[in-house]
Formats: sequence, structure tokens, C-alpha cells
Amino acid sequence: MSLPKAPIERIIRQAGADRVSEDAVEELRKAVEDAGQDIAQEAIRMADHAERNTVKKEDVEMATQ
Amino acid sequence: MSLPKAPIERIIRQAGADRVSEDAVEELRKAVEDAGQDIAQEAIRMADHAERNTVKKEDVEMATQ
Repeated sequence: MSLPKAPIERIIRQAGADRVSEDAVEELRKAVEDAGQDIAQEAIRMADHAERNTVKKEDVEMATQ
Repeated sequence: MSLPKAPIERIIRQAGADRVSEDAVEELRKAVEDAGQDIAQEAIRMADHAERNTVKKEDVEMATQ
């Protein structure tokens, strides 16, 4: 289950793009997915550090700071 | 139209999370959306720099390097 293209295209249009090629949307989808994986891994590291099995909001916040 | 939660939760579960709180998923959704906005803005800047109105794959690639 990947991230759907429609909201990704919406992000780049709301950022002010006039025209966007289809493969630019796909590239942004991949980049966003990669960023999510990086943040998720760091959040899991933060939960481990706090000796918790549950990843909480504060772990994600810490991961993005 | 925001990014849906299900694929965001999938990202953090595939990164190895056992348990994930609901607000952690929401926080990751926001972080991923922010990352997308940053990359999109930079990609638009790259397209402007190349004097194009169409944002292309290469602009997004440049924006993430």
C-alpha cells in the first residue's frame, strides 16, 4: 500500500506549481515515502531509548527535531 | 485532501514498530506532509531556475539531493 498520488499532487500544486509532469509527482511520492521511513526509524529508536514498545507522538516529534 | 493514515501507519510498521499510538501516526502524517511541502517548494525553485513552467522529475530529484 503506497501513498496515493492525488494528495501528493495536491501538495506540489499548493506549493505553487503551475504544471507538473506525471513522473515529477511519482518522484515526489517516492521522496515523501523515503522521508517517512527515515522519520519512522528514528521514532522507533526514540521509543527504544525510552524502553517502550509503543511508538508515541513524542517519539515522532523528537525524530523530527 | 490530506495524506491518508493507513499507508502512513504501514510505513512505521514496516520500519519495525510493534505498537504505534494513534497520535503517533497522525504526527508522522504531519511530518511527512511538511517534508513533501519543503521538497515541492525546492523543486519549483529548480524549475524556475531552469526557466520552465512545468515541474519535472529532474527538479524533484535535484530538490532531494
